[in-house]
Amino acid sequence: MKKFDSSQLPIGTSSETEKQTSLKWFRDLRDNIVKTFEKIENEARSDSILPGAKFERKNWVRDGGGGGEISIMRGQIFEKVGVNISTVYGELSEEFRSNIPGTEKNSSFWASGISVVAHMQSPLIPAVHMNTRHIVTTKRWFGGGADITPSIENDEQVRDFHKALREACDRYNPEYYENFKSWCDKYFYLPHRQEHRGAGGIFYDYLNTSDFSQDLNFTKDVGETFLKIYPEIVKKNMRKKWTKDQKNIQLEKRGRYVEFNLLYDRGTQFGLKTGGNIDAILMSMPPEVRWN
Amino acid sequence: MKKFDSSQLPIGTSSETEKQTSLKWFRDLRDNIVKTFEKIENEARSDSILPGAKFERKNWVRDGGGGGEISIMRGQIFEKVGVNISTVYGELSEEFRSNIPGTEKNSSFWASGISVVAHMQSPLIPAVHMNTRHIVTTKRWFGGGADITPSIENDEQVRDFHKALREACDRYNPEYYENFKSWCDKYFYLPHRQEHRGAGGIFYDYLNTSDFSQDLNFTKDVGETFLKIYPEIVKKNMRKKWTKDQKNIQLEKRGRYVEFNLLYDRGTQFGLKTGGNIDAILMSMPPEVRWN
Repeated sequence: MKKFDSSQLPIGTSSETEKQTSLKWFRDLRDNIVKTFEKIENEARSDSILPGAKFERKNWVRDGGGGGEISIMRGQIFEKVGVNISTVYGELSEEFRSNIPGTEKNSSFWASGISVVAHMQSPLIPAVHMNTRHIVTTKRWFGGGADITPSIENDEQVRDFHKALREACDRYNPEYYENFKSWCDKYFYLPHRQEHRGAGGIFYDYLNTSDFSQDLNFTKDVGETFLKIYPEIVKKNMRKKWTKDQKNIQLEKRGRYVEFNLLYDRGTQFGLKTGGNIDAILMSMPPEVRWN
Repeated sequence: MKKFDSSQLPIGTSSETEKQTSLKWFRDLRDNIVKTFEKIENEARSDSILPGAKFERKNWVRDGGGGGEISIMRGQIFEKVGVNISTVYGELSEEFRSNIPGTEKNSSFWASGISVVAHMQSPLIPAVHMNTRHIVTTKRWFGGGADITPSIENDEQVRDFHKALREACDRYNPEYYENFKSWCDKYFYLPHRQEHRGAGGIFYDYLNTSDFSQDLNFTKDVGETFLKIYPEIVKKNMRKKWTKDQKNIQLEKRGRYVEFNLLYDRGTQFGLKTGGNIDAILMSMPPEVRWN
């Protein structure tokens, strides 16, 4: 898995039905995440007559084909959380074809996915990232993952998060968890600081077992697992008080997050340098950051 | 100037005396900047018996040859200001030789320079960047520049800053200012936002007129001009009150600064990806930043 050779990816362009199935799943998952996170904001204000924070939605259209929907909420628990879905298609530029399997002789592509990044008011609740996608060229695959970035060490949170992902992985392949965990550790790493971005999770790409349903189900499971475990971690910690020093640690930790996203993240670099939608690409930026 | 062809750079490795002259200049300029900025902090506290902020110094050594000195101050006027000097030398890696003139057949290089970045407490005072350097391979040249990034529009500041740089340029070559101003506008640009980083200034590179003294004098003049005009702008504005909205505009403007430095700045990218000194490279990061 770590020595992935994209030339070995089985050929298998997805049917329209498969594309529609994925697309609908990403939208449903978005709706469920939005509902769940808004519910948390409401619970946090149970002692107030004021309504809880709500997501705001913005749509964008891509020159060349497709577009997306950005949902952003700024609340009392979620300092800033973005949930993006997008479905884009068209022709890949010469420059990027060498990076994308299955485009050597045909530049057409289709891609649909969901991306979530949450930066929390409390430094005692880890930031989280979850993203899954379905890509179709003359080949087709799924990719994605989920990982947390705690500011203040908390073994229980890391254990619970990884345990949930391990269980999801194990339902499909006994090797997935170890492979995808290593991939995540390797990917979310800042070489210039010799630091991992956070406490990891899983990261996978070019997933094609030749069984579309199984690969889609695994991808759905990653989304559902995220939607179960992260709210649990939030609720368990959201009433704990934090200190100013802990908040400062979080603000500095966010600086590393920014460094990773702008210096190394393939999605960010790809999006920015190919004229993607700025608001969608930089949705992941923390609301407030410090460098010392 | 804009269509610079490095193959036309005259051959002329600098003598040891020339290197020592530059190196000493960068150190003297650093000392003067530090003294001047500390004096401003003292003036700002003239109504207090507490002493003003002072620069703290840190040294670093480079594996492979040379090193540098980082001076950082966090004050009431200068929220965070860094003044770095460094002199490094050795052999350039294969990977970077294609980018550096005069290393095609000989990988040796020597480089000395100064770099200043100031982020101000007041959103009514522009952030500033000044950097000059002397590079020696089988060719030799000077490079650098100075530019300001206002958060709140202020025509007077922009006019004064550019006027001072124009006068400095005009003392050497009537074409310098226009050329170096365009180069600056082109360099400090964020294509993904179609925005300039700030209000510009000058930027020059590969400067070698075959007259070492003249090129060094121009580089000195850029430093001295910065040291005269920027403190004037600071003093003229440092007692003005600002609003919370203005501060927020500044914090967001700093986000663009971070985006530029991590996504596009050649020095930052070069430094981080070749294992340079992290503290020195990221000295330019703003102390506090917001993304909306």
